[in-house]
Formats: sequence, C-alpha cells, structure tokens
Amino acid sequence: MRYFLALVLSVAMGAATTASGQTQADAIKAVMLKSADDWNHGDLLAFATCYKNSPDILFMGATISRGYSQMLAAYGHKYPTPEKMGKLTFSQLEVQPLDERFATVTGRFHLERTAAGGGNADGYYLLVFEKTKDGWKIVRDDSTQLPAK
Amino acid sequence: MRYFLALVLSVAMGAATTASGQTQADAIKAVMLKSADDWNHGDLLAFATCYKNSPDILFMGATISRGYSQMLAAYGHKYPTPEKMGKLTFSQLEVQPLDERFATVTGRFHLERTAAGGGNADGYYLLVFEKTKDGWKIVRDDSTQLPAK
Repeated sequence: MRYFLALVLSVAMGAATTASGQTQADAIKAVMLKSADDWNHGDLLAFATCYKNSPDILFMGATISRGYSQMLAAYGHKYPTPEKMGKLTFSQLEVQPLDERFATVTGRFHLERTAAGGGNADGYYLLVFEKTKDGWKIVRDDSTQLPAK
Repeated sequence: MRYFLALVLSVAMGAATTASGQTQADAIKAVMLKSADDWNHGDLLAFATCYKNSPDILFMGATISRGYSQMLAAYGHKYPTPEKMGKLTFSQLEVQPLDERFATVTGRFHLERTAAGGGNADGYYLLVFEKTKDGWKIVRDDSTQLPAK
C-alpha cells in the first residue's frame, strides 16, 4: 500500500523515472553539479557543455545572446581568467518537469572571488533544459546578477 | 516552387501551423498583446489569465512565487492602483517554439508611469508558455526590472 501510494505520487508529480531508476530531477541536478565543478577547475569549455550545442539556444541578461558560439564568447569575455571565474556554488536548486523532454530549473548562484577577480557576486536564474541525444542540456538561460551589497 | 520553399522553410523553422493557419508564434503574441491591453485597462484579474491557473506555475524575481494565487497576490501587492500599474508596452517580442506544447518568449517591457505611480520602469523577461485546453498560458516567468536610469 505504501509502495502503491509512492508510485501514484511519483507519477502524479511527473517525476519521470528512467530505466536506471534515475529521475529527471536527479539527472539534471547532476548536470548542474558537474558544470559548477568544471567552472571551479577554470575549464570554461567543459563547463559550456551543459548547454546544447545549437545555434538556437538563448542566453539572456540585459541583452540576449543566441547560439552556442555566442554563449561561449560572452562567458570568455566576462570571465577571461580563473581569478575572474572564481568559485561557483548553486543553492535552492529546483527542477520542475514540463514533460518528458523539457524541464525548468530555478536556483541561485554565488561566485566567491577575490577583489582583483571582481569580488563576490550573487544572482538567480531560470533555465530550460532539453533531453537531447547527449543528455540533458540547457536551451534557455535567464540569469540575473543582483546588485552588489 | 515558391510555395514549396515557403512550406519547407516553415517546417524547418518549427513554425507549427494550426488548422486555422495561425502559428504558435502568432497565437502566443496575441495572448501577450491581450494581456498588455487588460493591464492598461487596470484589470489585473483579466491580465492574470495569461498565466495558467495552476499551483505549479513559477513567477520569479529576486524571490520565487509558486502558483496562480501567489502570483495574483504579488501583482496586487506591487500594483494596487491603476496609477501604480501605469501603461505597459512590450518590445523585441520573440517566440521560440520548444515543441508543439511548449514555447519560450523573450522580450522587454516598459511601464510608463507618473512620479506618484512610481515612475517609469523597464526590464526584460523569459517566459515559458504551455498550450493548455484554455489556450497558450504562461507557466514560468522570470522578469527582471533594470535599475532606474
């Protein structure tokens, strides 16, 4: 009975479980954690693979960049050195499935940086993930950096 | 030949056309324009119907609100009078389909307001629309207000 209830809840909550027993949310959180790890090793090219390699992705702040190459260029411009990249952590990470192929992720980021690196930075984001043949990838990113305290 | 090319382009661009010939993008833009019109008549309840009436929708800024009721309360709190609501216009409106059921919308907003109403405000947003039985509705809203000039 308890198992049945858990099953019903899991289906009702849209927690699509793969053959391996991994939920969408688990798989997407793993992509997010790997991306932070890549970032914290100063490896921008590895970090960027959390995005879909497509000319259609959107990466937005006050201006909108379109496409994987533009996203890479924007990150490279803003974070040219490991010191400018700093140490990235995510919190309040929440995955909300849309359907089997798409999900949104909301959360906060914190960048721990030296004064020379630009100082600490905080913000939040709404991401849209797509399940591609290469795994879950970001196709829309709206990140907002909060004003420095 | 020209017709064939147009057809190929339309399919290639993912511009899913309904039986009535209306594309996803047209239908979603119509929802956006109606919402601005409702807003500009000071009718918050009508405006809010551009959102899906669901406890699962996300409406985010520096904090995250979840659910239709919370979204209404947040708008009601921030915009209690027609003067505080001001006149809303959208620009750079762009619809990007994800699939037949979901699409994202990016754009900018401008609020024209008296000084007593709070002054003008500008910002941008990433929205996720879902095609529901009641038409295209917003299920995720990440809106960012730019610092006043």
